Amino acid sequence: GRRFFSASHEEIAAGLTTDVYFIKTRETLRAEGVAEAHVVAEIFPREDGVFAGLPEVEALLRGRGVKLWALPEGSNFAAREVVARIEGPYDRFGLYETPILGFLASSSGWATAARRARLAAGGKPVFCFGARHVHPAVAPVMERAALVGGAQGAACILAAKLAGQEPVGTVPHALFLILGDTVQGARAYHRVMPPEEPRTILVDTYKDEAEESLRVAEALGDALAGVRLDTPGERGGVTPDLVRELRARLDQAGHRNVTVFVSGGLTPERLSALAEAGADAFGVGSYISSAAPIDMTMDLKEVAGKPRTKRGRIPGRTPNPRLVEVL
Amino acid sequence: GRRFFSASHEEIAAGLTTDVYFIKTRETLRAEGVAEAHVVAEIFPREDGVFAGLPEVEALLRGRGVKLWALPEGSNFAAREVVARIEGPYDRFGLYETPILGFLASSSGWATAARRARLAAGGKPVFCFGARHVHPAVAPVMERAALVGGAQGAACILAAKLAGQEPVGTVPHALFLILGDTVQGARAYHRVMPPEEPRTILVDTYKDEAEESLRVAEALGDALAGVRLDTPGERGGVTPDLVRELRARLDQAGHRNVTVFVSGGLTPERLSALAEAGADAFGVGSYISSAAPIDMTMDLKEVAGKPRTKRGRIPGRTPNPRLVEVL
Amino acid sequence: GRRFFSASHEEIAAGLTTDVYFIKTRETLRAEGVAEAHVVAEIFPREDGVFAGLPEVEALLRGRGVKLWALPEGSNFAAREVVARIEGPYDRFGLYETPILGFLASSSGWATAARRARLAAGGKPVFCFGARHVHPAVAPVMERAALVGGAQGAACILAAKLAGQEPVGTVPHALFLILGDTVQGARAYHRVMPPEEPRTILVDTYKDEAEESLRVAEALGDALAGVRLDTPGERGGVTPDLVRELRARLDQAGHRNVTVFVSGGLTPERLSALAEAGADAFGVGSYISSAAPIDMTMDLKEVAGKPRTKRGRIPGRTPNPRLVEVL
Amino acid sequence: GRRFFSASHEEIAAGLTTDVYFIKTRETLRAEGVAEAHVVAEIFPREDGVFAGLPEVEALLRGRGVKLWALPEGSNFAAREVVARIEGPYDRFGLYETPILGFLASSSGWATAARRARLAAGGKPVFCFGARHVHPAVAPVMERAALVGGAQGAACILAAKLAGQEPVGTVPHALFLILGDTVQGARAYHRVMPPEEPRTILVDTYKDEAEESLRVAEALGDALAGVRLDTPGERGGVTPDLVRELRARLDQAGHRNVTVFVSGGLTPERLSALAEAGADAFGVGSYISSAAPIDMTMDLKEVAGKPRTKRGRIPGRTPNPRLVEVL
Amino acid sequence: GRRFFSASHEEIAAGLTTDVYFIKTRETLRAEGVAEAHVVAEIFPREDGVFAGLPEVEALLRGRGVKLWALPEGSNFAAREVVARIEGPYDRFGLYETPILGFLASSSGWATAARRARLAAGGKPVFCFGARHVHPAVAPVMERAALVGGAQGAACILAAKLAGQEPVGTVPHALFLILGDTVQGARAYHRVMPPEEPRTILVDTYKDEAEESLRVAEALGDALAGVRLDTPGERGGVTPDLVRELRARLDQAGHRNVTVFVSGGLTPERLSALAEAGADAFGVGSYISSAAPIDMTMDLKEVAGKPRTKRGRIPGRTPNPRLVEVL
Amino acid sequence: GRRFFSASHEEIAAGLTTDVYFIKTRETLRAEGVAEAHVVAEIFPREDGVFAGLPEVEALLRGRGVKLWALPEGSNFAAREVVARIEGPYDRFGLYETPILGFLASSSGWATAARRARLAAGGKPVFCFGARHVHPAVAPVMERAALVGGAQGAACILAAKLAGQEPVGTVPHALFLILGDTVQGARAYHRVMPPEEPRTILVDTYKDEAEESLRVAEALGDALAGVRLDTPGERGGVTPDLVRELRARLDQAGHRNVTVFVSGGLTPERLSALAEAGADAFGVGSYISSAAPIDMTMDLKEVAGKPRTKRGRIPGRTPNPRLVEVL
Ligand SMILES: [Zn+2]
Ligand SMILES: [Zn+2]
Ligand SMILES: [Zn+2]
Ligand SMILES: [Zn+2]
Ligand SMILES: [Zn+2]
Ligand SMILES: [Zn+2]
Ligand SMILES: [Zn+2]
Ligand SMILES: [Zn+2]
Ligand SMILES: [Zn+2]
Ligand SMILES: [Zn+2]
Ligand SMILES: [Zn+2]
Ligand SMILES: [Zn+2]
Repeated sequence: GRRFFSASHEEIAAGLTTDVYFIKTRETLRAEGVAEAHVVAEIFPREDGVFAGLPEVEALLRGRGVKLWALPEGSNFAAREVVARIEGPYDRFGLYETPILGFLASSSGWATAARRARLAAGGKPVFCFGARHVHPAVAPVMERAALVGGAQGAACILAAKLAGQEPVGTVPHALFLILGDTVQGARAYHRVMPPEEPRTILVDTYKDEAEESLRVAEALGDALAGVRLDTPGERGGVTPDLVRELRARLDQAGHRNVTVFVSGGLTPERLSALAEAGADAFGVGSYISSAAPIDMTMDLKEVAGKPRTKRGRIPGRTPNPRLVEVL
Repeated sequence: GRRFFSASHEEIAAGLTTDVYFIKTRETLRAEGVAEAHVVAEIFPREDGVFAGLPEVEALLRGRGVKLWALPEGSNFAAREVVARIEGPYDRFGLYETPILGFLASSSGWATAARRARLAAGGKPVFCFGARHVHPAVAPVMERAALVGGAQGAACILAAKLAGQEPVGTVPHALFLILGDTVQGARAYHRVMPPEEPRTILVDTYKDEAEESLRVAEALGDALAGVRLDTPGERGGVTPDLVRELRARLDQAGHRNVTVFVSGGLTPERLSALAEAGADAFGVGSYISSAAPIDMTMDLKEVAGKPRTKRGRIPGRTPNPRLVEVL
Repeated sequence: GRRFFSASHEEIAAGLTTDVYFIKTRETLRAEGVAEAHVVAEIFPREDGVFAGLPEVEALLRGRGVKLWALPEGSNFAAREVVARIEGPYDRFGLYETPILGFLASSSGWATAARRARLAAGGKPVFCFGARHVHPAVAPVMERAALVGGAQGAACILAAKLAGQEPVGTVPHALFLILGDTVQGARAYHRVMPPEEPRTILVDTYKDEAEESLRVAEALGDALAGVRLDTPGERGGVTPDLVRELRARLDQAGHRNVTVFVSGGLTPERLSALAEAGADAFGVGSYISSAAPIDMTMDLKEVAGKPRTKRGRIPGRTPNPRLVEVL
Repeated sequence: GRRFFSASHEEIAAGLTTDVYFIKTRETLRAEGVAEAHVVAEIFPREDGVFAGLPEVEALLRGRGVKLWALPEGSNFAAREVVARIEGPYDRFGLYETPILGFLASSSGWATAARRARLAAGGKPVFCFGARHVHPAVAPVMERAALVGGAQGAACILAAKLAGQEPVGTVPHALFLILGDTVQGARAYHRVMPPEEPRTILVDTYKDEAEESLRVAEALGDALAGVRLDTPGERGGVTPDLVRELRARLDQAGHRNVTVFVSGGLTPERLSALAEAGADAFGVGSYISSAAPIDMTMDLKEVAGKPRTKRGRIPGRTPNPRLVEVL
Repeated sequence: GRRFFSASHEEIAAGLTTDVYFIKTRETLRAEGVAEAHVVAEIFPREDGVFAGLPEVEALLRGRGVKLWALPEGSNFAAREVVARIEGPYDRFGLYETPILGFLASSSGWATAARRARLAAGGKPVFCFGARHVHPAVAPVMERAALVGGAQGAACILAAKLAGQEPVGTVPHALFLILGDTVQGARAYHRVMPPEEPRTILVDTYKDEAEESLRVAEALGDALAGVRLDTPGERGGVTPDLVRELRARLDQAGHRNVTVFVSGGLTPERLSALAEAGADAFGVGSYISSAAPIDMTMDLKEVAGKPRTKRGRIPGRTPNPRLVEVL
Repeated sequence: GRRFFSASHEEIAAGLTTDVYFIKTRETLRAEGVAEAHVVAEIFPREDGVFAGLPEVEALLRGRGVKLWALPEGSNFAAREVVARIEGPYDRFGLYETPILGFLASSSGWATAARRARLAAGGKPVFCFGARHVHPAVAPVMERAALVGGAQGAACILAAKLAGQEPVGTVPHALFLILGDTVQGARAYHRVMPPEEPRTILVDTYKDEAEESLRVAEALGDALAGVRLDTPGERGGVTPDLVRELRARLDQAGHRNVTVFVSGGLTPERLSALAEAGADAFGVGSYISSAAPIDMTMDLKEVAGKPRTKRGRIPGRTPNPRLVEVL
């Protein structure tokens, strides 16, 4: 039996995740003897955003005898701009319309959100902590897209590996809940971690965040890299004033090098206010992971060398000098 | 080399899609000798919705020596209601917090949207056509969740297989664009399809939808099951008035049995109005596929038999008689 | 018996359309021997707008022994600006307050709307097609006022004649409905019309507008001047995207000289968007014809050489150097 | 030369106020030999309202060899309900589409506003004082329509005559401005008017309305029927509190039978509040006269006995049992 | 020299806080010999509210030879209802219009706010803590009015004395800031206070509120009556979730009798939510103290036995059976 | 017995208007032997405004052995800016926190409103007429604060005296109601007043304001300084148009030197419009008197020479170079 519902790479490549009507179309066109008609197809998005997902499209089409042009991975695009063009016999790629659009729609949605988060944070580092909100099969896809869009690092192990980075993470509430005290947890963590790993300790589990931060700073001394604030909404969340107060209290106690890392329900509005209040870095989860895919549409624009398309679209190739030859 | 970025079933089961801080927690707790502490963890959602994703959680935890209680797959849940409880030594499942929450958050988001679509359609059949908006690795997960939530069928081949159904689909614009005429395409399709397959023909590619519907109905006669309207937004989309007019014209021409299937940017508001105007069935795409995951949170509530949790939560188990023993 | 309820020119000149209290006033003042009191009356509008209707006021007052100053026909005016002044014995004009105000209020309302439509269309020609929304007795008044305000032409035969123009019009849906096909109707029209009459054919009666436009362009060749889009709201109305697509398809087929004329529910917002999308000319109906009259008020400001007026107004003449002597 | 721009009854009957494209259609159809095609045309409104204007349509079509069904004059109608149907050879009535729709659109707009004013006034009498806002050629049409909708009387002499009533009116500011005092004006008016004419005196020209009312009541004694309040907006308009105070002061001084008549910028909201405060009757001007015409559309629905119509409409006759045979 | 700017009781009684134009009026009327004219004056409010301040009006008018009727102290009143009537020679009270209205306007404003707070709290006790927002001369007036309106007690020493109560208060942040620890402060306070004084300790000065509450409960044992939450806005304020969590943690630790007292920026909306979450009592400050005075107007309604009043009011006494004879 | 509820100067100085918990704090700290701890306290407002009330704070603290720094009386301040700092042994001033904050909060609220009124009036004189809305004990405090904020004069006798000015006032409606006619009242007032007192007569008691103004101007001739408009809301209030008309009528009658003074429900929006329309001066009541106190907070920031404060605030002195040494 199958353990999980997600599709394997082989199933994707075999076309099993496509909409069944493309199978029916293939059968019909083959019976009519026109399945190999030479066509030009173009893909355009419905909104502005950041282009991502191209390597998977390329992997899917490589070796199938079609040409592919596209914007470079990570480019900004405008609503309705043509972001990719495929040319070749229809039978070589028609079946893959569903996964091609899916690769681009989902990764572009995540990359766009990550770029907006980064801009809102005024360029301070943003880390993607959204894996817990998406199916694990796409957690690495999502975090890779966030890195394309501008995230500094990712928490998911596989995503970091795909990007040739080390995964980024501190410690969860569970560590302190099991050990029963934040300072005791911080000391245990400090003993175990290799020296090069920065010590950033979560300080909102049991006590007032400012009090706990000072306790941890005293306990770890110069070894402490930062503190993480993740105050839940039930307690008012992390406010800009809390960041300002914590920064001042750390400084007054001589801990000027201890950074303040904030996580928990961060949106562009909150990122701006918290960055302005002195927070140093951010873990962004659902703002990135819940970003809606950016709807992509593929249209045939030429058939057998003639402009032809459906009602509502303009026949023929749409010139876009930003497209680059990929295949 | 790896072709796609999505995680395989083996990578998921090996914990490679989890956030790295759970690895660090495991190492720290093991060094402290408390990794096997007996804990109770509870999962709750942030909004109302429909519960889905449980079979994958069960598959992940089976055989790991923990107990699991949960709502039955497909149940409605309220914001902050406990939907699942895990009990056992922390080391047996702590690492999997990220994928467990991801399974539930993503599938519950999609199931919830599907249920809302079905209700808006007044119980008329809704088919999930959203695969093109999501990464192909999760297309079957998404469509399966939509079936749990109330969709009648799915277009994605693998999703239908997982649900023991036949995939559902008509024909895309591409078929008619290559063949050059809708009636010619309809005839070709009719010749090729097996007899039991219903003939539902897309009628907005070239001509006025009403005119094309009548041409197709004349051409296929009693063999025609339905017509599909997918008029693009550039042409005003499918309006309730168009459905009313088309229904009347089909009836006047004696095609009372031809059904009207609508797709394209359907939301609950539009589903209600179109169902009321006489549409018979619907293909819903981005409303389901773009549904945000429903944020799920896992909290430790007991450690070593004692109520304990973090600030902002109430320590101890939260009674919920709706939970059913799963493992 | 009388066929219609509208007043004839003679009835208007005889004061039969005035409010009866002016008759009672005349009787009372005559009995008191003061009916010939020398007075100054001023007229002001309640909103900004375009001044129209003066020739009818002049015709009514000519030969009655009063002086008249006014803004030139077609001037812009500001709210509360004095737009006309009458001086003379009260008995010579007091009875006509109702029709004087009515001439100015109604024509200024229509002229103002026409000017706004013209500005919204970015200077492209706007034709007044609103006669069907007003009583036929005032249809020529309305369309003449629209010409004063900036419309390029009018559809109503009598209005055009009053303005020394040819009436403007293409062909209605009825022609094609009776002949049963748009191309057949276009050919019949082409045969009958004199050579100097431009052929602009309505293309939304039966078929998709783009398809029909190309059929008509093929059928009439160089003789075709333009196509008219009047798609009803039930089919989404005329969208800017439809204009863009139609323009592109006409151009690709070599019909670059065929213009696109749009009608149907046009407002300033839609005029701007459609002009920007490439439409060449517009037929504007209810936006002009339904324009509310611009409320005009006449106040006595001097009686027997002394400043006198009612509570709420400032006694005496209001200086306005823009007024020109008319009578 | 022509004095005014409005069309005479003869010009209307001769089709000179129609849109020119109906002339062109007639010529084309005659050349094709199908001008006498037997057709069914239906007329429907775009909004809810009160049906008016039918007698003029009947006068125009009588004797032309067509059948006419319609709602009874003064009926309520719903948006999109068929309000009239014409059947016969197209050439007999096609030319008159413009004036037919214009009769109905304009009178129905005015009748609808009058009915709303009457309802807002809680059934107290409302008089139409709007002639000064419309072209004098349609002043009697407008006031007649207001009477159909529910107005109690009209100020325009010709309108009242058409309705077989006496015109209604009090006295304007001009009377008092020329005579120099309200009491002096009231006395003069009282001397001149025939005994059966009710004396209602305007009391806001010079003095505080309550003070002036009491002066007039003392001067005219039992002869005084009512006072009219028409306080201009510059002085705060007529407020419900002013009506209450005036009523109390009249009663305290023993003038219980003197009624309070209000005019000036009355809308349904103000009518409700003033009626509730004790005002007895109302003169309504621009709310009725500025009412937008209710857009009416005529569609061919059958040609030569077959259902046929344009895109966006449903072919064939629309059943409506409320229609009554007129011709 | 004078230390403070507030008026003494003697200055008030001497008329020194009145508007100077009443002095001028007195001089003018005396010179005319009509200062002793017998008049009836009535007082009405501009909004709904709770009537308070009557004892001070009574004290001011007693012995001056006038009659006084009023609503009973603490009554609800409606906008424009007559709440008091004074009858007698004008010279005996005319000078005091300013202080009479001031007594009633200010106390009624505060009493009204207190009643709204009490209703929002669902009947749980509300204490007035607003003295710090008003001038000390009126702090006792304000808190007395709050007691009239429904507050359970007051913090201001003098106000409690005026009401024959003990003042209510716990301990401020300053106590703990000087002693350096909340538990140490609580113990000191416990040693000093007399046994009958309930111990309610402020728990948000240094530590997490739940942690501090449990420390204090352990330290004082059964002697602890309650804890006070006053979390500042910079830390998210007191949320309903914090109250729920604190209640649960106190109960789990066996401190079921310890009550939860909330203060800090409480409005009716927050009072409702916090009462519903389990808070037991409330300290309300600026919502009561910043309540705008309820504007009171005094009008002469009779002079020398005849109805007479100014424009805008109805002459003569306004019947109100709820008025009670006071003087 | 006590006549009024307000506190005397002696009661304020004795600490009787303070919140009782400061008494309990004193007892506790004395018992602990730390009552004389050296502390620094700072006061900050919650909103922007104008600083007032300092002389009363100074009077309260003088001679108590503490240092005081503050902004100068009448300064603008920003939200959260430190406006005052007190340093010394806690026992010397801790008890007075309630009255200190009350002095500043209430006077700053009134001064801020007065400044806004003055700015809205474009610098034309604004007089404070709000005494009738506040308790008489604080009427002089309020009007003095208004003078600090920018009012030109005050109506309350005691307030004017405190400011070394003459109180400002014209005549109330009562004068004219008792005398029965405005002109008669104006003549009586003119006979009695000393020559240097300007004659400003209230003109809305009985008659139309413009008519009454002209009657009064004729009666008093050059002796008339101004007229006051105070038209009640029941009659539409004072509108800018009324001011314009009155100005014009006075000028036309040769009374160019008669000023127009407006009172009654004036807000910044109305002040701007009326000043622009030509009003010369204004009496502002409830806009100033109902201004909410500006919430002031006092925090300990140092104890025994060390930065220390409560959660939510930043420990230690906040630098503010605008503070000036007072004590
Ligand atoms: Zn957290
Ligand atoms: Zn999250
Ligand atoms: Zn489509
Ligand atoms: Zn889609
Ligand atoms: Zn049309
Ligand atoms: Zn129209
Ligand atoms: Zn008037
Ligand atoms: Zn009017
Ligand atoms: Zn606090
Ligand atoms: Zn407060
Ligand atoms: Zn007044
Ligand atoms: Zn006031």
